[in-house]
Amino acid sequence: MLNAEIIAIGSEMLTPFRVDTNSLWLTERLNSLGIDVKLKTVVGDDESRLEEAIRDALRRSEIIISTGGLGPTEDDITRKIFARVLKRHLVLNDEILERLRTRFARRNMPMPEINSRQALVMEGAEILANRNGTAPGMMIQEGKCTVVMLPGPPREMRPMFDEAIAPVLKQRVGDLVILRRKFSIFGLTESRTDELAAPVYLKFKNPVTTILFKDGQIELHLTAQARKSADAEKLLDELGGQLDEVLGEYIFSRRDETLEEVVGDLLRARGYTISTAESCTGGLVAGKITEVSGSSDYFLEGVVSYSNESKIRILGVPEAMIIEHGAVSEPVAKAMAEGVRKLANSTYGIGITGIAGPGGGTEEKPVGLVYIALADDTQTTVRKLIFPGDRQFIRTLAVNSALDLVRRRIS
Amino acid sequence: MLNAEIIAIGSEMLTPFRVDTNSLWLTERLNSLGIDVKLKTVVGDDESRLEEAIRDALRRSEIIISTGGLGPTEDDITRKIFARVLKRHLVLNDEILERLRTRFARRNMPMPEINSRQALVMEGAEILANRNGTAPGMMIQEGKCTVVMLPGPPREMRPMFDEAIAPVLKQRVGDLVILRRKFSIFGLTESRTDELAAPVYLKFKNPVTTILFKDGQIELHLTAQARKSADAEKLLDELGGQLDEVLGEYIFSRRDETLEEVVGDLLRARGYTISTAESCTGGLVAGKITEVSGSSDYFLEGVVSYSNESKIRILGVPEAMIIEHGAVSEPVAKAMAEGVRKLANSTYGIGITGIAGPGGGTEEKPVGLVYIALADDTQTTVRKLIFPGDRQFIRTLAVNSALDLVRRRIS
Repeated sequence: MLNAEIIAIGSEMLTPFRVDTNSLWLTERLNSLGIDVKLKTVVGDDESRLEEAIRDALRRSEIIISTGGLGPTEDDITRKIFARVLKRHLVLNDEILERLRTRFARRNMPMPEINSRQALVMEGAEILANRNGTAPGMMIQEGKCTVVMLPGPPREMRPMFDEAIAPVLKQRVGDLVILRRKFSIFGLTESRTDELAAPVYLKFKNPVTTILFKDGQIELHLTAQARKSADAEKLLDELGGQLDEVLGEYIFSRRDETLEEVVGDLLRARGYTISTAESCTGGLVAGKITEVSGSSDYFLEGVVSYSNESKIRILGVPEAMIIEHGAVSEPVAKAMAEGVRKLANSTYGIGITGIAGPGGGTEEKPVGLVYIALADDTQTTVRKLIFPGDRQFIRTLAVNSALDLVRRRIS
Repeated sequence: MLNAEIIAIGSEMLTPFRVDTNSLWLTERLNSLGIDVKLKTVVGDDESRLEEAIRDALRRSEIIISTGGLGPTEDDITRKIFARVLKRHLVLNDEILERLRTRFARRNMPMPEINSRQALVMEGAEILANRNGTAPGMMIQEGKCTVVMLPGPPREMRPMFDEAIAPVLKQRVGDLVILRRKFSIFGLTESRTDELAAPVYLKFKNPVTTILFKDGQIELHLTAQARKSADAEKLLDELGGQLDEVLGEYIFSRRDETLEEVVGDLLRARGYTISTAESCTGGLVAGKITEVSGSSDYFLEGVVSYSNESKIRILGVPEAMIIEHGAVSEPVAKAMAEGVRKLANSTYGIGITGIAGPGGGTEEKPVGLVYIALADDTQTTVRKLIFPGDRQFIRTLAVNSALDLVRRRIS
């Protein structure tokens, strides 16, 4: 198995505030190509330590990937130090310079002179275009070692790796096929998921299963390897089938889709539309649904009725109902869902009201209490839920629950 | 300033799913003692790489802190490799062995034989008791370097550091006061910020300034050290004052507040209210405003008018205007802001319409084009902006811009 080493560069990565998420993402990608990550280094804008890290890496690793330090400022030292260690000159690339100027011109801004530093490239290196930013990446072969320099911002680094680096590394690895499958789950705790799934996945040495807990959702990553693609698929099918049996309805995707994509596909396939009336989630359900490009096909409108006044006036919730039951109550959630459905003339209407905290809780209605209603032309169902955690986590779980309710209703 | 290096040990730290949060926590603690973290290494259960990492660290750093690899199993190699590099014997400590046996006995379990390995300690090392687990830590002085081995689980590592290590390091540092200040900026690119700020902050060796780019916002972290708190404050005031002169209006907080908190405080202080009408941001402006607990004091309602139909019906945007200018246009943004303000009867109304992409762009109206309008009872201003990046980044910048527009109007 080929081994790789990741070097994250930049003093901000040595503050208490910044997690090196790039290296996690890269590790996932490298593993999926059948490459092992053996070491990670985080180094600041410190020339001698970076130089040492690169020298050590060159001696012991077959692949070196650095992230960051390709910006335009003085303390972006990646280019300079790699060139020094690899004993290569940096030359100004006119084509990149021109592209940089055009990029700034498009936004009606003059290019700051320091940005021209980003057009410096190493002799003999392959230049990697940056679709989402100014700093180009570089790749160079040094003896047996493939050296890659990527920019730090994830939205620049990721497409560059996928488009330019992954194909090259895949060729180096040869014909071992690594296939992965991702099962996405909502509605179970992490420990309950493991209790159900472990007796199944522990029977398999190949595929390997990893569990990830993220924003209230759970992901099972299955990785199979084989000489032939069909064999790896078969291994995944077998484990996948057994996991389906124990986790069934909680699995919302078996192929790396987000919950909002799954819901969007279900709505579009049937020609259904949806609208939202939100209180405690403050627009985040609408925001999540519209994260999917093309969501205007099925998302019509949303109302964030934060005040009682707006629940009454826009959504037609009866004032007497709010007085009798309170704004956070089952009948109000129901009336919100039905109100917005009528207003938007959509197939479905979602209504959410709850107490996200930290203030506003009572014995009877504690922080974390959320009512979620889903209305269509024949029925309105309401779920009463009590979520744990802080304001942000409660809102996140409420958004997920609302989407999952739609998924279950349609499918 | 003393410098430290952190080594995280354990193969699980090299999977895609595990963030090295220990090093963030340690960095915060070390910084607050006035100690700089210059390098972090993550290494697996790999003897030769760990040995190399320790040797490099001993040569260049004044403090080495390792976490993990002190468990009872074969692949817990920290003890062995540190002993090898430091040329010290490991000896069985009867007292620790006894404590381990008692610990297991209390839980009515026999101690697995492999656990006795945890009673092996380095000659000459200070033993650090573990209140919450079985593995003791160790601290040893090697020449000018303080070497510390801590267990990996945070609830074992943290009290051990605070109780046994922090007092020792504090003594090494002397009685230095470290104060921090955070300036938060929106509306400038990273390179433009640095162009303006670098001539100022580079004049100062103390405070030290770090620049961080995050979700379209920029943070300047200022860290000052002095013998007395008042002196550190004075240093921060001086640098802060000079940064104010060059960055002025772009600074939205000088004390670690979010943009939505700043806007919320401004609204509340004046008894103003606000409402939102969003198209391309799909509810995220409302979602951001309501992230602040207590935002119901000033946020009244939001409309996510994704369809033209809803812009016309709820917000009263004239159909003829949409036909003439298109849904993404200056007059429509203006009409949305004025419409929602009237609907909600709020002090301010925000209107946003744009093209978040990836589809839907034209030559005349490219992806990234966003109109943001802000209406009050005397005027409505509209800004035309062209944002770079993908769908998510365009939406994030649009949300920030809308909030910043409100901040600038009020302050």
